[in-house]
Amino acid sequence: MFQKILIANRGEIAVRIIRTCREMGICTVAVYSEADRDALHAQLADEAVCIGPASPMESYLNMGRILSAAIATKAEAIHPGFGFLSENSRFAAMCEECHLAFIGPSAQVIEKMGNKAEARKTMVQAGVPVVPGSKEPVYEAEEALLQAEKIGFPIMIKAALGGGGKGMRVSVCREDFLENFRMAQTETLHAFADNAMYLERYIEKPRHIEVQILADKQGQVIQLGERDCSIQRRHQKLIEESPSCAVSPKVREQLGETACRAALAVGYESAGTIEFLLDKSGEFFFMEMNTRIQVEHPVTEFVSGVDLIKEQIRIAAGLPLSVKQEEVLLQGHAIECRINAENPENNFLPCPGTIQNLHIPGGKGVRVDTAVYYGYRIPPNYDSMIMKVIVHDKDRASAIAKMRSVLGEVIIEGVETNLDFQYDILNQRDFEEGNVTTHFIEEHYGERGERTCPD
Amino acid sequence: MFQKILIANRGEIAVRIIRTCREMGICTVAVYSEADRDALHAQLADEAVCIGPASPMESYLNMGRILSAAIATKAEAIHPGFGFLSENSRFAAMCEECHLAFIGPSAQVIEKMGNKAEARKTMVQAGVPVVPGSKEPVYEAEEALLQAEKIGFPIMIKAALGGGGKGMRVSVCREDFLENFRMAQTETLHAFADNAMYLERYIEKPRHIEVQILADKQGQVIQLGERDCSIQRRHQKLIEESPSCAVSPKVREQLGETACRAALAVGYESAGTIEFLLDKSGEFFFMEMNTRIQVEHPVTEFVSGVDLIKEQIRIAAGLPLSVKQEEVLLQGHAIECRINAENPENNFLPCPGTIQNLHIPGGKGVRVDTAVYYGYRIPPNYDSMIMKVIVHDKDRASAIAKMRSVLGEVIIEGVETNLDFQYDILNQRDFEEGNVTTHFIEEHYGERGERTCPD
Repeated sequence: MFQKILIANRGEIAVRIIRTCREMGICTVAVYSEADRDALHAQLADEAVCIGPASPMESYLNMGRILSAAIATKAEAIHPGFGFLSENSRFAAMCEECHLAFIGPSAQVIEKMGNKAEARKTMVQAGVPVVPGSKEPVYEAEEALLQAEKIGFPIMIKAALGGGGKGMRVSVCREDFLENFRMAQTETLHAFADNAMYLERYIEKPRHIEVQILADKQGQVIQLGERDCSIQRRHQKLIEESPSCAVSPKVREQLGETACRAALAVGYESAGTIEFLLDKSGEFFFMEMNTRIQVEHPVTEFVSGVDLIKEQIRIAAGLPLSVKQEEVLLQGHAIECRINAENPENNFLPCPGTIQNLHIPGGKGVRVDTAVYYGYRIPPNYDSMIMKVIVHDKDRASAIAKMRSVLGEVIIEGVETNLDFQYDILNQRDFEEGNVTTHFIEEHYGERGERTCPD
Repeated sequence: MFQKILIANRGEIAVRIIRTCREMGICTVAVYSEADRDALHAQLADEAVCIGPASPMESYLNMGRILSAAIATKAEAIHPGFGFLSENSRFAAMCEECHLAFIGPSAQVIEKMGNKAEARKTMVQAGVPVVPGSKEPVYEAEEALLQAEKIGFPIMIKAALGGGGKGMRVSVCREDFLENFRMAQTETLHAFADNAMYLERYIEKPRHIEVQILADKQGQVIQLGERDCSIQRRHQKLIEESPSCAVSPKVREQLGETACRAALAVGYESAGTIEFLLDKSGEFFFMEMNTRIQVEHPVTEFVSGVDLIKEQIRIAAGLPLSVKQEEVLLQGHAIECRINAENPENNFLPCPGTIQNLHIPGGKGVRVDTAVYYGYRIPPNYDSMIMKVIVHDKDRASAIAKMRSVLGEVIIEGVETNLDFQYDILNQRDFEEGNVTTHFIEEHYGERGERTCPD
């Protein structure tokens, strides 16, 4: 097992990784930007190295500085968390060149899955159902329009690389296609320094269902059930749950089997997620594979009892999975709400600032993953997500009741948050009844995701 | 179901009860003393009523004021928590007279189990093994000595009423008996305003093993496995775990069956605990029954998934248990460490004061039950326990590793605590190997429970 791991990330996920390392008796090295001098992750780690200015390009995305920090501190492995360099195949390859274990799949797999067209091709070969779409990345608007007409409208235009909702547009007909394509491509260029686009049939009112898998270097692949992440605002997940109330036992079995097949097909090693769109008939289509730990992994940890970070570390160290498929017992229902420092009254504009009062609830079946503390100044340079509230109870209704109670107890003063917005979603009858699709927010709160009716 | 419940308690247990009420959609009324104006429980409840000065006799033990508060706020039920009035049969009877549901067993059962001699007699009749001891309460030292000689030394002298280690003394031979009896009786008188004593054979180096039961008004009794609470300092529990590594599957079955039989024999209704002494051979003897929720209930909640407070409330409202014995699945291993505001360097003297810095860990399998917050002033009037850290993992070794990591992360500044002492216990090889008895602390830390070797 590794003696020392460097965590190439910040915020709650860095804290969460540090905690598992401590439990495993592994020393930790945090890296932090100048804006994160007071960050919790830098305080909790055994060692902390400043890697540069606030700008991500100068710190958390700066491969050279992170690798230098790892070498200087004699770390043996790097955990990339999510975001930042977690799906950067070049970084994974550079780790390997520096004789550092990258805690994730191989650079080849990251690259293959990171390119949506490539991923899709691989999945088709493995017999995984995919949404009809482009066979190769497309760069030119006119060429894209020809492809779109073959696939059939409505069409989803996406960045071939990237994710997180950036560079995505829906075109409903040939008339609005070119404009949408160009806007999406411009966004893509700004977000990912790349202009490769990808087109696919737009599935109407689908659910976002994803399957968590774990695969070790011994060739063992297991799945830990599905997560329903349909509640999204502009393609950003807001609420995630496991299991999905829309997935029948039969579809669950198919999803799990398909996800394991997909992971095997690409020679996957580590924790990973296969994302599917589920349509009203129960048919599902491969969307993409995330080759990293995900924000919403705690809901799976709650229902399965498996520590996903621990398994990632074990796998990277060459150990077999600590759990077999037949030992996996999924129990109860877990829900996660992402709490962002943002202003729902002002188009969800991020609201950095200083936490002037803070009360974090606890109790049975409650987990709060956060890196904020009383008096902490949230820097303006990074993602606005500051807290994940996760609950677990015996069924969905109990879990919703628990989440309402917990959100009602949270106190965060000094910055605006989406707490009330989350609370409001939980009280929507359609949410309670499980009538959710990826369009839930726009249908209940309008285009900008703002509350349209007072209740 | 009740619309409104008054919580006749303070601190973390009041907060914990309020949380479950919120989840169940039940309004809560907190009561607080003048010393507890800023207490978290008073802030979290829907309503809060000041019931008098800091002195417990004037507030949390004042039945009239608590009942008045319940009637004035139209509460339908009272949850007594633990300590204070939780095992006071007169209070339970007065609730009934005021048409308030007492969330606990009937006054008759509390009275019967509260009197150790009476409890013992009942258990003997139910075929529950007991430690050889006195048949009736004893008041006179000389009479006690005659009884002690019949029972056989060593002898444990206890308060017939009461608990928590007050009024307890061990006499190893007839020569030291009278002095010990008189000291124990004086303590008893001061602590419980009563001088009835009780004698029993002293089991050498036993484990303290207790079984959690739940019994509803429909006559259903279930057990949720055992807790090992052997780590005690002067009869005060410090660390509790479930399951016990000293209990074989066969003994576990016997313990569970015996506990259910005991509960049925007394017509028990609510959550309750049957405490046993387990000797080296695996034989166990009834010690006492606690007719209330216990401090250490979260370890059972972790391994069983059952919310014990929710079940208590359901039972008091006349609903059946929400779980059947065959549905109970005990999984993994849970450990609780009690964090007290006390000075281990000064004979564990309670250390009230103001919390000047506070960091409460979180994460997978971690639960921290507390009512302290940043800037909170711990009043000097009440119990020194300020936090319960509870962890859950797949086995005992993982749970210990997790607890070490979590205790290492806790920050409490402004008051002295036993955090380091707890951490030290966790690192004792005998603890790691499960070689624990109720004498663990004195054997490893000396009579006063202080560290004897710097380690």
